[in-house]
Amino acid sequence: MIQRFSFGQMIPTESVVCSLPVSESPVPYLIQDGTGWRYEMAEDDIVYGLGEMVRGINKRGWHYCANNSDEPHHTEDKRSLYGAHNFFVVSGFGGRPSFGVFIDFAGQVEYDIGYTEHDVFTFRTAEPDYDLYLITGDGAADICHQFRGIIGRSYIPPKWAVGLSQSRWGYKSEEDIRAVAKGYRDNDLPLDMICMDIDYMADFADFTVNTKAFPDLAGLSGDMKQQGIHLIPIIDAGIRADEQDETCQEGLEKGYFCKKEDGTPFVAAVWPGEAYFADFLRPEVRDWFGKRYKVLTDLGIDGFWNDMNEPSLFYTPDRLRSAVERAAELGAKGNLDMYDFFALQQIFSSLSSNEDDYKTFYHQINGQTVRHDRVHNLYGGSMTRAAGETLQTLRPGTRTLLYSRSSYIGSHRYGGIWLGDNDSSWAQLRENIHQMPSVQLCGYLYTGADLGGFGADTTPDLVLRWLEFGIFTPLMRNHSAMGTRDQEYYRFDKQLPAIRNILNLRMALIPYLYSEFMKAVLEDGFYFRPLAFDYPDDAMARQVEDQLLLGEGLMVAPVCTQNAAGRYVYLPESMKMLRMRSVDDFDEEILPAGHHYLPCALGEVLIFLRPGHLLPLVRPARCVAELDESHFNFLSYSADGNPCTYRMYHDDGLTTDYLRPEHWQTLTEAAKV
Amino acid sequence: MIQRFSFGQMIPTESVVCSLPVSESPVPYLIQDGTGWRYEMAEDDIVYGLGEMVRGINKRGWHYCANNSDEPHHTEDKRSLYGAHNFFVVSGFGGRPSFGVFIDFAGQVEYDIGYTEHDVFTFRTAEPDYDLYLITGDGAADICHQFRGIIGRSYIPPKWAVGLSQSRWGYKSEEDIRAVAKGYRDNDLPLDMICMDIDYMADFADFTVNTKAFPDLAGLSGDMKQQGIHLIPIIDAGIRADEQDETCQEGLEKGYFCKKEDGTPFVAAVWPGEAYFADFLRPEVRDWFGKRYKVLTDLGIDGFWNDMNEPSLFYTPDRLRSAVERAAELGAKGNLDMYDFFALQQIFSSLSSNEDDYKTFYHQINGQTVRHDRVHNLYGGSMTRAAGETLQTLRPGTRTLLYSRSSYIGSHRYGGIWLGDNDSSWAQLRENIHQMPSVQLCGYLYTGADLGGFGADTTPDLVLRWLEFGIFTPLMRNHSAMGTRDQEYYRFDKQLPAIRNILNLRMALIPYLYSEFMKAVLEDGFYFRPLAFDYPDDAMARQVEDQLLLGEGLMVAPVCTQNAAGRYVYLPESMKMLRMRSVDDFDEEILPAGHHYLPCALGEVLIFLRPGHLLPLVRPARCVAELDESHFNFLSYSADGNPCTYRMYHDDGLTTDYLRPEHWQTLTEAAKV
Repeated sequence: MIQRFSFGQMIPTESVVCSLPVSESPVPYLIQDGTGWRYEMAEDDIVYGLGEMVRGINKRGWHYCANNSDEPHHTEDKRSLYGAHNFFVVSGFGGRPSFGVFIDFAGQVEYDIGYTEHDVFTFRTAEPDYDLYLITGDGAADICHQFRGIIGRSYIPPKWAVGLSQSRWGYKSEEDIRAVAKGYRDNDLPLDMICMDIDYMADFADFTVNTKAFPDLAGLSGDMKQQGIHLIPIIDAGIRADEQDETCQEGLEKGYFCKKEDGTPFVAAVWPGEAYFADFLRPEVRDWFGKRYKVLTDLGIDGFWNDMNEPSLFYTPDRLRSAVERAAELGAKGNLDMYDFFALQQIFSSLSSNEDDYKTFYHQINGQTVRHDRVHNLYGGSMTRAAGETLQTLRPGTRTLLYSRSSYIGSHRYGGIWLGDNDSSWAQLRENIHQMPSVQLCGYLYTGADLGGFGADTTPDLVLRWLEFGIFTPLMRNHSAMGTRDQEYYRFDKQLPAIRNILNLRMALIPYLYSEFMKAVLEDGFYFRPLAFDYPDDAMARQVEDQLLLGEGLMVAPVCTQNAAGRYVYLPESMKMLRMRSVDDFDEEILPAGHHYLPCALGEVLIFLRPGHLLPLVRPARCVAELDESHFNFLSYSADGNPCTYRMYHDDGLTTDYLRPEHWQTLTEAAKV
Repeated sequence: MIQRFSFGQMIPTESVVCSLPVSESPVPYLIQDGTGWRYEMAEDDIVYGLGEMVRGINKRGWHYCANNSDEPHHTEDKRSLYGAHNFFVVSGFGGRPSFGVFIDFAGQVEYDIGYTEHDVFTFRTAEPDYDLYLITGDGAADICHQFRGIIGRSYIPPKWAVGLSQSRWGYKSEEDIRAVAKGYRDNDLPLDMICMDIDYMADFADFTVNTKAFPDLAGLSGDMKQQGIHLIPIIDAGIRADEQDETCQEGLEKGYFCKKEDGTPFVAAVWPGEAYFADFLRPEVRDWFGKRYKVLTDLGIDGFWNDMNEPSLFYTPDRLRSAVERAAELGAKGNLDMYDFFALQQIFSSLSSNEDDYKTFYHQINGQTVRHDRVHNLYGGSMTRAAGETLQTLRPGTRTLLYSRSSYIGSHRYGGIWLGDNDSSWAQLRENIHQMPSVQLCGYLYTGADLGGFGADTTPDLVLRWLEFGIFTPLMRNHSAMGTRDQEYYRFDKQLPAIRNILNLRMALIPYLYSEFMKAVLEDGFYFRPLAFDYPDDAMARQVEDQLLLGEGLMVAPVCTQNAAGRYVYLPESMKMLRMRSVDDFDEEILPAGHHYLPCALGEVLIFLRPGHLLPLVRPARCVAELDESHFNFLSYSADGNPCTYRMYHDDGLTTDYLRPEHWQTLTEAAKV
């Protein structure tokens, strides 16, 4: 059951797609606490949700703030990352209540989940105007399923977007892109996409191409497609302030940019230098901005990533000027002291994405002028919505790949998200595992982290271990930052055979992974989820934070510790372990329920088949389009001797005609070759 | 066997206390590789050592640099922390060789331990002048034992220094200190020390007291001692540049400060503002500086911590001036662009401890002028040496507590180290576990991390879990940074009963912990060590990074994961598990060798007794001096039915008369009350 409670006069977010009547009864479970709410937790209660945040799957033990932030250091002390995902589930045990809460609010929401007091959960919105949905049901999985029902169907990418994507901030020319394609193809490694980071643009201006470095992007795109590779350019939120630039001209003429109090367009510097920010909260601006993508779709581009859309601000001219002036004043003073030094360092380190700058510009919402900070969390997702809605009209009936850095619940209908600017560390591999179910239960199904890590230098073993998990994530991208170690999979000579085998394993798994992805989308179900979603009465399963259920038949348990030659795995029931070195080379062993220490060398992948389940595999190919899905090999675990079956979703992977009944078929083990 | 190889003309470090003949034979195992050395590792080889560094106990999979750094963010991407501990052991398995290497060199040493190539270890010194000691023996433990033999006996603190120390950057007055003591005493929590961070000084000047805030430090110190509490003031490396300041005056007059190329004293700003840096590499300067501690010992102070001695430099006046000038120039230019912005931000963010500044000042070593960067790693440890050597003459026959942030192998003879400015995160609790054996095998036995975490805000569960490990570390200090959440143990109301029980458990364990500490010091043995040191043929034991052996009889396995209600533990042999809620309330269970999942609730401590071992416990007291060690309770695990014995070290804990045979006694279970 879902109850809607309404407080004050909320700014519409369109997060929820249905209109529930407002309940006048008291809010169950929660106790009003000043301007917020309070819940006393039992020691066994788990809190799931909040999407893209640091720390574990169980969010207890920290305080968070929904406040979309360009934050590249995902350490435990961070309270906000890129997305605002104001949905959580309190999961009780042993007769304790379970319930879900969605706070429909466009501004900041503070959560204290056992931070101040270990057993007390409080939350509050920055303003008293919001809707609160309270969901009860048959445990965490049912509650999340019901929630998904009110926020609308998750975004569906083209099927080729579940192939591998190679990216790096630093591909500067057509030659660089061709070299990456060659690196993959010459080394016989599958690849479906190459991302183009900011350097493909002219002066980092959206909807332009640096024609010196990319003289024929359409030709390059066509050549790549011949190799089964799609080019995926970046689009940033800020629009270069340049009177020669068409997007800028149009936006200024039409008055589509966010404005300051004096009515002039708000300006902040990002990659292209000074930039304007489209008011994506207006439908006509979304329509206009979305149509600008045509510049690139006309060149054969069929996928995009939206970035910098929290929005990230490197600095505002006023703030930078005042910093420089303060420095000059101090310089004139001559004898600087320690306090001057700290003050100056603070001024320069707080120039970017300064909270005060978010209070200096305005949106138009249904004819009202609304200061940005009040609707800050809607900005990035609304950019995604601009692209997602309009690309459906630019390319009717056809899917376009789209994913974003910033998001809010609602924008999951228009695009996926990647998990932002992580770094090359074992801690971030573990964060990847924790965040996958957390964002997916909030509706973000097409998602994944930058494998191998974006910032900092990676290592050969980390690349391999992370890949061993990454092959299960729907969005599978290897991305790294300028100045860091080369990270394309073909760069690791000694690990190459293992990498090739594991990438091929991903290709072989795609029919299953895509089918489970589509099931989760079409049936408001789950792709990744914590063990307790399926084994709610198993107290031990509730503890596990480094194993995930994947679709109907699998559990994964990645090695995510440096120098480990294996790991502990908890089985809530008997499962068949597959220790896979490649599609064809693996050990299988039926393990009883309980605790196990399982060796898992570098280059091995542990997959667990649940009883009664069938896993279809195909022969690998260099790209998704070339997979032959007419023949399957099956792996199965029939605990009771009966043949296993698999309810499979299969479509063309390109059109938006998702709902035809013939997309479903039942595979049975009898069909085993 | 220890072989010494000598290359070029090394700057003396005095790290090694004996003089071994130089071997002319080829260096075993290592292959010369350009200016460095190379070793091909088998997959099973483990690399122990390097002391205070990030990542695991096994250092494989990253590149490190011995380059003492004021680095408060101990994330996986860091290559250097506060100490230079150039000793490592390659531990082979299944017939592969094991050997230890000590690189006796005062400058930077680069290590690539499977970072560039997974199975290749290389290292090189910044200059070709160094000694290399190659140690072979009967496995890792024996190799480390031999190494300890050539670097001299580790520092021994007063016994009261194994009690609890409470610290916070932010105690600003006598009232603050008294409030902390009252918080402990009123809540019936044991406490032996309160640290005094920089605010006790006048203008942050060494060897001064802010008499406004601390009008009678001698009186305060006396009052505290009545309560069993020692005051432990900080001493920073930089000496306030102030002609009114006695230390400054004397240092200038005698020419004891490091000088620039032009012969004028080098100046950089730290807490007191502009400061001079004593040339601790000169014996006469060490003697002079050490005697300055008399200002405080005369007030009844008997313990110190040396800080900021990498040395940390906030900025040099020249560098700050040039930053400000550059900002002013850009301001005058008017229209700043993104590149100006990045350049400015970079200038201001790189002001502190800039590598180029370390090339602008000089030391006098045996009459030679040596640029600082060439001997950088000796600086902090030489400050400790200054204090440690001289305090032995100021307080003859009596122990003084002394520990330092920066160190090099050699300074372990003069003081302990704490593990620097960590933060309040579960990751740092795990780092604490990893670093303990790593620094201890390099000779730093009196050591520990800031429990609960220094930077960032802690949480009640982290405080408790960290304490559950912290009670085993010789240096046991709760310390936190200004601006972070209050972190004294009495601040956590709901956890207070559990905290009290665990602190009392520490007190009860002190006879054993101190005895094992002294054994490790006097016999070049180990306090903490990896499981593989005692179970070298156990392939699984070699993998374990989150359990430690402690002294002769115990193994500890702390819970170090948020929200975990237990953990996996590997037992190389049968042990008796003690799940302790307090000294008197515990479960005991004999567990077979192998893998176990063991519940461990918040407030419980898992201790494992090895077969044949006896653990003596005493009744807790409010401070170490008040422990009654005439009566023991025993816990034991007699696997074979024979009574267990314990070879115990016990002395007065105050004098330096360590070696008397009557300090040793054998306890037997028969003595059980």
